[in-house]
Amino acid sequence: MHILVTNDDGVMAPGLLALVKTMRELGEVSVVAPEQNWSASGHVKTMHRPLRVKEVRLLDGSPALASDGAPSDCVALALLGLVKKPVDLVISGINPNANIGHDVTYSGTVTAAMEAVITGDLPAIAISLDGPDNHGAPLDFTPAAVVAKQIGQQIIKRSLPKGVFLNVNVPFLTLDQIKGFRVTRQGLRVYRDSLDKRFDPRGRPYYWIGGEAPTAIPEEGTDYGAIAQGYVSITPLQLDLTAWNVLSEMQKWDW
Amino acid sequence: MHILVTNDDGVMAPGLLALVKTMRELGEVSVVAPEQNWSASGHVKTMHRPLRVKEVRLLDGSPALASDGAPSDCVALALLGLVKKPVDLVISGINPNANIGHDVTYSGTVTAAMEAVITGDLPAIAISLDGPDNHGAPLDFTPAAVVAKQIGQQIIKRSLPKGVFLNVNVPFLTLDQIKGFRVTRQGLRVYRDSLDKRFDPRGRPYYWIGGEAPTAIPEEGTDYGAIAQGYVSITPLQLDLTAWNVLSEMQKWDW
Repeated sequence: MHILVTNDDGVMAPGLLALVKTMRELGEVSVVAPEQNWSASGHVKTMHRPLRVKEVRLLDGSPALASDGAPSDCVALALLGLVKKPVDLVISGINPNANIGHDVTYSGTVTAAMEAVITGDLPAIAISLDGPDNHGAPLDFTPAAVVAKQIGQQIIKRSLPKGVFLNVNVPFLTLDQIKGFRVTRQGLRVYRDSLDKRFDPRGRPYYWIGGEAPTAIPEEGTDYGAIAQGYVSITPLQLDLTAWNVLSEMQKWDW
Repeated sequence: MHILVTNDDGVMAPGLLALVKTMRELGEVSVVAPEQNWSASGHVKTMHRPLRVKEVRLLDGSPALASDGAPSDCVALALLGLVKKPVDLVISGINPNANIGHDVTYSGTVTAAMEAVITGDLPAIAISLDGPDNHGAPLDFTPAAVVAKQIGQQIIKRSLPKGVFLNVNVPFLTLDQIKGFRVTRQGLRVYRDSLDKRFDPRGRPYYWIGGEAPTAIPEEGTDYGAIAQGYVSITPLQLDLTAWNVLSEMQKWDW
């Protein structure tokens, strides 16, 4: 078993190290991750500039590769040949914030898993912790890392249907407190963004996309519904965005 | 009718001007677009830095706003208050290359339309021309701009179901040659990326994600199937990526 680990918070993020440590219990681990934070960066394919890769060491001394590309670039680099040994499973995380609802289209963590499906036709997992805003203080990623290992074991045993990847969200609880696993559908985020116009010291305007943190609707059966009740949420995702429910109706329109 | 126009090729791209001109026949047009090219940039929400906005003029002398954010940022900026008058419809393009199959998760053109749905709950269209690689020479965007107007008229007449946006691809043909419209499902791209390792003048490696241009499977009923036969492809998309076909099966797994 050869597992590729990446993330969107940067190669030195503590969530990545926690994940690497438990994934090593399932097989050999290679790390290709961004040098820096790419949160809310979306699904990127960097083609207008070349990418650099450097060898770095994680905090436990183990080797890793860091690239100046996005998380999806890191996965493409690895699977297109930067990592010589064939990869069996790609896992991205552990993100310190939940990725639920529409977050999946923005999330670097999730788009890295998308890229594993597109470029490698591989099983892939994105894993996020529903962590509090800890103002920079370290979060305990251990329970989420154990969950990642358990889900990895399932995938090794059962594989995943072609084209499907998992978006996993873990509640911020101890292993004892986590009630179990729920296989869920993508729920609804409620973004509360606003535009904050300010002026620089030279009197010129600039704009922050700001506002309050997003909330979500804790509906039964959804990603957020599960974590709000203390369960790990496992949402199987795929890449066909067709609005099937309106397709035949729209075909009847007078075009 | 107040129409917001954006793109991912940059505010000075000829595809945007062609689109602005025909959309003006449907109502008032505001333009907020990126200063520069953001192709394959994905769905971005820029939160780690503020965004700048400047007033520019399109080649026909009309005013526009240019931002240093991604296409999705431009839409968020506009809808969160940068554009004062309420927007009724968002249209993004005209991209000089088709956006079909998995392209929709990478495409700045398409993610701008996604953002219109998420931030503004508005009807939105992404429009792309299946243009040849013209080595920088100008493409004729006129037929695609006329198509954009026709589709805009439909949406004004019928509106779009909540949460649905349109991914439109136009074959590179004259208006006479275009056979009509097809409402399609998202098809399958075949990417042919490879990793091209080179060395800089100082002997250090760098990597291009390169390879041959992607192809696609011209299957009946799909986006590419339609344009390959000379039809305009209109794919209704939505933002729920749940893999519904495996959800109940995976719920039976022993988690």
